[in-house]
Amino acid sequence: MVIGIDMMGGDYAPQQPLLGVDLFLAEATPGIKLLLIGDETIMRRHFVSVPAAVSFLHTTEVVDMQESPTKALRDKPNSSMNKGLQLLAEGKIDAFISAGNTGAMMVGVFYTIRAIEGVQRPTISTVIPKVEGGYGLILDVGMQADCKPENLLQNAILGSIYAQNILEIENPAVGLINIGEEEGKGNLLAQAAYPLLRESKLINFIGNIEGREILTGKADVMVCDGFTGNVILKLGESIFDISKSRNLDEDDYFKRFNFETYGGTPILGIDKPVIVGHGISTSKAFVNMIHLATKMIETKLLEKMKEKFVSEETE
Amino acid sequence: MVIGIDMMGGDYAPQQPLLGVDLFLAEATPGIKLLLIGDETIMRRHFVSVPAAVSFLHTTEVVDMQESPTKALRDKPNSSMNKGLQLLAEGKIDAFISAGNTGAMMVGVFYTIRAIEGVQRPTISTVIPKVEGGYGLILDVGMQADCKPENLLQNAILGSIYAQNILEIENPAVGLINIGEEEGKGNLLAQAAYPLLRESKLINFIGNIEGREILTGKADVMVCDGFTGNVILKLGESIFDISKSRNLDEDDYFKRFNFETYGGTPILGIDKPVIVGHGISTSKAFVNMIHLATKMIETKLLEKMKEKFVSEETE
Repeated sequence: MVIGIDMMGGDYAPQQPLLGVDLFLAEATPGIKLLLIGDETIMRRHFVSVPAAVSFLHTTEVVDMQESPTKALRDKPNSSMNKGLQLLAEGKIDAFISAGNTGAMMVGVFYTIRAIEGVQRPTISTVIPKVEGGYGLILDVGMQADCKPENLLQNAILGSIYAQNILEIENPAVGLINIGEEEGKGNLLAQAAYPLLRESKLINFIGNIEGREILTGKADVMVCDGFTGNVILKLGESIFDISKSRNLDEDDYFKRFNFETYGGTPILGIDKPVIVGHGISTSKAFVNMIHLATKMIETKLLEKMKEKFVSEETE
Repeated sequence: MVIGIDMMGGDYAPQQPLLGVDLFLAEATPGIKLLLIGDETIMRRHFVSVPAAVSFLHTTEVVDMQESPTKALRDKPNSSMNKGLQLLAEGKIDAFISAGNTGAMMVGVFYTIRAIEGVQRPTISTVIPKVEGGYGLILDVGMQADCKPENLLQNAILGSIYAQNILEIENPAVGLINIGEEEGKGNLLAQAAYPLLRESKLINFIGNIEGREILTGKADVMVCDGFTGNVILKLGESIFDISKSRNLDEDDYFKRFNFETYGGTPILGIDKPVIVGHGISTSKAFVNMIHLATKMIETKLLEKMKEKFVSEETE
């Protein structure tokens, strides 16, 4: 298996991606090869001798963190991000990781990587620590700012398969993020999504999840529109930052908000593994993103998603 | 000035409302009278001798915390909640406070208290502690689950007047809660609301506020749809609960998330002061709700809101 990494993406690239690769290589990881995509001169200089598991792809352009996504893709065909996505589309790498410009990654994925057949729109998620231990999953967190009830159902299915295979939760409970407990509560989207979720045989739907229950672990997979989800994600991150600045991040719970422990978030609903990292990713986040990519491949996550959507179509 | 209090509303009624009244009466509060609405026998038993500032209105029915709002209003005309709203509508009390069934309060207000002329829909807000001190205001937090761009503008105006008078912020900065920094980002609602907010001369609009900036104090007044706002509100409350359970609530910042320090939230956009308390309100929350009602009357908050909307109409 070959994991491709955008070594030029992120606020601390290429230094932190390189240090992340070092951390990964220090572990015993037989059979996993890394393709480092970026400025080969800089990358080679980092290694005293190039490890056997590592190879390089030299690229000459870099997508800037603040650049317009469509402009970046059009004007920088030889960027590390573009090249990585192309290699993935062509099957020359098995997964692609980038902590670069998130908007450009999303647009790039849209143009190069196909959606799973039956999936209307790709989605991104975030894991969120449960108070009693373990992690839950919230999706969508930004790709579907406006969405339809069917998107919420599809995200629930994708999220359930992810939770089973990656978070290792056997029969993940699915909740609809909402502003009341009973069916019929909420905005028009939530009201329309509830019966779809309730009727689906592909998920274990347990009902509405209010804001106060997001962190309690009542549900393992929580679905909402990407606007609400993005606000939750970033508010959660800021709570970790605040607890850190107040020296509370050694608390067993609050320290688990540190996004670096889970690295990055995969784009789900597409037919190849793509992981998007936080712009401020450090070596720890990179090594965890490589682990996540490995696990997505080893558990045959995407094959399972494809099967589920095929079976849904024929039901 | 007479403040009416629903003594039967809330999970710990009438005990905690009565203790809250005690706390209030222990302060020097000349000119403020309290009308206690509820079971007179129980209330009288609480006082060794009835204080001069206190009078009673006996009611025989109680709206239950989980009762259907419309059913409660139809079937229990003599409830403490209904009677309080009626007295307020008739001008016999100057403000009304209830920690009872929130849904019933909202429906009851809708039928008994008029909107300020020019205001399309009433709104509820929450104050949220800023990291560097002071409080910001988020609205709407649940009455406007689906809303129009114009609602966000009106809420920004109402919130600004509230922040000036009650939070004592001179020229409150207004932010649009959104999922990106620049104009044009966000869902359809946020995209449409941005130019309305930017063009309004009645507010000091500073642009978009991402989830990570909600607690930083970048904006004093933050507007969003009531779905997103309700999730933020309840997530914020759960963070306080979690920090409390982990003995972190003595931290100077996290302890300010305790809703009891600000008591309850007014319904804004209506032409009388109505304060809705949390179901789990204790005496501390009740005394702070009485203070809030007093301040709303003393600062002539509603007169100022009415003037602003009249002037907006004629602009």
